[in-house]
Amino acid sequence: MNKEIKIQHGSGGSLTSKLVQNIFYKHFNNPYLLEAHDSARLPGVHGRLAFTTDSYVINPLQFPGGNIGKLAVCGTVNDLAMSGARPLYISCGFIIEAGFSMELLEEIVRSMAETAKEAGVIVVTGDTKVVEKGNADKLFINTSGIGEIPAGIEICGQNARPGDAVIVSGTLGDHGIAVMLQRQQLQFQSSVKSDCAPLNGLVSDMLKECPGIHVLRDATRGGLATILNEIASQSQVGIELAGSEIPVKEEVQGICEVLGLDPLYLANEGKLLAVVPEDKLQNVMRVMHAHPYGRDAKVIGRIVDKPEGKVFVKSAIGGRRIVDVMTGDPLPRIC
Amino acid sequence: MNKEIKIQHGSGGSLTSKLVQNIFYKHFNNPYLLEAHDSARLPGVHGRLAFTTDSYVINPLQFPGGNIGKLAVCGTVNDLAMSGARPLYISCGFIIEAGFSMELLEEIVRSMAETAKEAGVIVVTGDTKVVEKGNADKLFINTSGIGEIPAGIEICGQNARPGDAVIVSGTLGDHGIAVMLQRQQLQFQSSVKSDCAPLNGLVSDMLKECPGIHVLRDATRGGLATILNEIASQSQVGIELAGSEIPVKEEVQGICEVLGLDPLYLANEGKLLAVVPEDKLQNVMRVMHAHPYGRDAKVIGRIVDKPEGKVFVKSAIGGRRIVDVMTGDPLPRIC
Repeated sequence: MNKEIKIQHGSGGSLTSKLVQNIFYKHFNNPYLLEAHDSARLPGVHGRLAFTTDSYVINPLQFPGGNIGKLAVCGTVNDLAMSGARPLYISCGFIIEAGFSMELLEEIVRSMAETAKEAGVIVVTGDTKVVEKGNADKLFINTSGIGEIPAGIEICGQNARPGDAVIVSGTLGDHGIAVMLQRQQLQFQSSVKSDCAPLNGLVSDMLKECPGIHVLRDATRGGLATILNEIASQSQVGIELAGSEIPVKEEVQGICEVLGLDPLYLANEGKLLAVVPEDKLQNVMRVMHAHPYGRDAKVIGRIVDKPEGKVFVKSAIGGRRIVDVMTGDPLPRIC
Repeated sequence: MNKEIKIQHGSGGSLTSKLVQNIFYKHFNNPYLLEAHDSARLPGVHGRLAFTTDSYVINPLQFPGGNIGKLAVCGTVNDLAMSGARPLYISCGFIIEAGFSMELLEEIVRSMAETAKEAGVIVVTGDTKVVEKGNADKLFINTSGIGEIPAGIEICGQNARPGDAVIVSGTLGDHGIAVMLQRQQLQFQSSVKSDCAPLNGLVSDMLKECPGIHVLRDATRGGLATILNEIASQSQVGIELAGSEIPVKEEVQGICEVLGLDPLYLANEGKLLAVVPEDKLQNVMRVMHAHPYGRDAKVIGRIVDKPEGKVFVKSAIGGRRIVDVMTGDPLPRIC
């Protein structure tokens, strides 16, 4: 096999076919994919569908805790899970710069296959394009996903109600800091890893306990602050955060202080935010704490009726600081 | 609004939100998309599902007969239609190079919306990423699609049977030649346009007449030769083509002769190949000729039992020439 991706690997001809056989079919081996039609033909889904897409352009491609392939599967699985859906099928579209290492491509595809297995989803269809050297930065991956939303589940950003509790499933900012340190080769002795993980198992446990969860969101690009603002605006409510309760690893907090970053705006790839009716809070927290990806879950605030559309942090001494939407971009190409 | 895409348009923060509102929501306006959740939440689909994905990296972005946006919708609609599915929902993922023209982006999105309307599909979910100048070539688009396969339809590459007729829906090579002339600024006085079109309406008419069509494929990257070879191999049959029957516009044929290209290997974006049981051939041809995208349909050959896995052209004087799979790439980034 060639050691590098050539422009002809994207032609649709015999080299494309070899690449598909030797890497994609080998790792994503399943009957839907191997049928090799223009579309995958899949069994019917009885419930409502969830459908989502994301392109991944992260730089660098590998980082502590994961790589672009693991990220691409987790991100799409999580977007499905956040609408209460059971993720079923994933597509993947690769845009590869000519000259890219075949070995690294296979390693990334292997990670995708492992993560898909963990999440219980099947990669059923795909596409490969190759562009000339200099016309893309190494590798971009798109994943789209289909899930099934069980009857009775009504999760969306409009559903937050005053009195609801706001939960995060663990520490904030790990992905953002891990990628930034990897990218900039900063001289921090750091053990921070990306939190990149498929959250559908955790969500499934939470929904078994409380099918009436009001909102679920994963706190990716733009961080917790961005999604809280979206929810406050969509539900026309206020969100009051208890600053001291927001979980941030000591090491991440330290690096943020040195670099002048706010963990509320950093990307996470394995953390969710849940808005839960107060009377179900204890039950939901119990199942979250029992799950490996929810072990550090914390109640960080509550939904209030005013000021509508605003998020604010209440400090220990009673002060109030507005948490605004993000305007710049602290870290481009974080996912 | 900014005249150019900035890196912050991809941050997930307030500029991303403005871009989404001002361009994507404006043109793809529908309730599923406007719900603005991590996933679109869609009604259940009763039949089997078809699911497909394609990334578009075509250069140049605009060409006679279309642009990357029209192409991205047609390509995915056609992939769904080729499994006999009724296309329903489309996702789109944009990877944009910083500095890209906001006006051109809007024009491309407008084309996507118009084409989606023609095809009767809804753009229900999307994603936008921006990379630094020099890290992508202007704009790449991924579209994925979901369709419903009606009961009783069994179309796939394994189904060609000796005796079946092989039909193409119109002239070959128009897309390939139109894009090449546009790209290379060759001094041909040419009126050739890309054939880029959504074929689901044509397929729907064909399936009403003959639900038992054996194979459908669109002849994109790699051209007719590549898909014929795939079908011959998947169905373990031979395919005999009547060279004189293969429809090619005179102008395209002329340009191919000058440039040493073979229209059988050129990309099409609005032509399908159908393998049809002989007893239904006349009925299928009648509905094809009645449809604007099938007006020039021709029977170009038939399925034979030997040589297995091979495609060959029979000349008027009885000679036989093997049509092999494509090994090089006559025209990179054609879609």
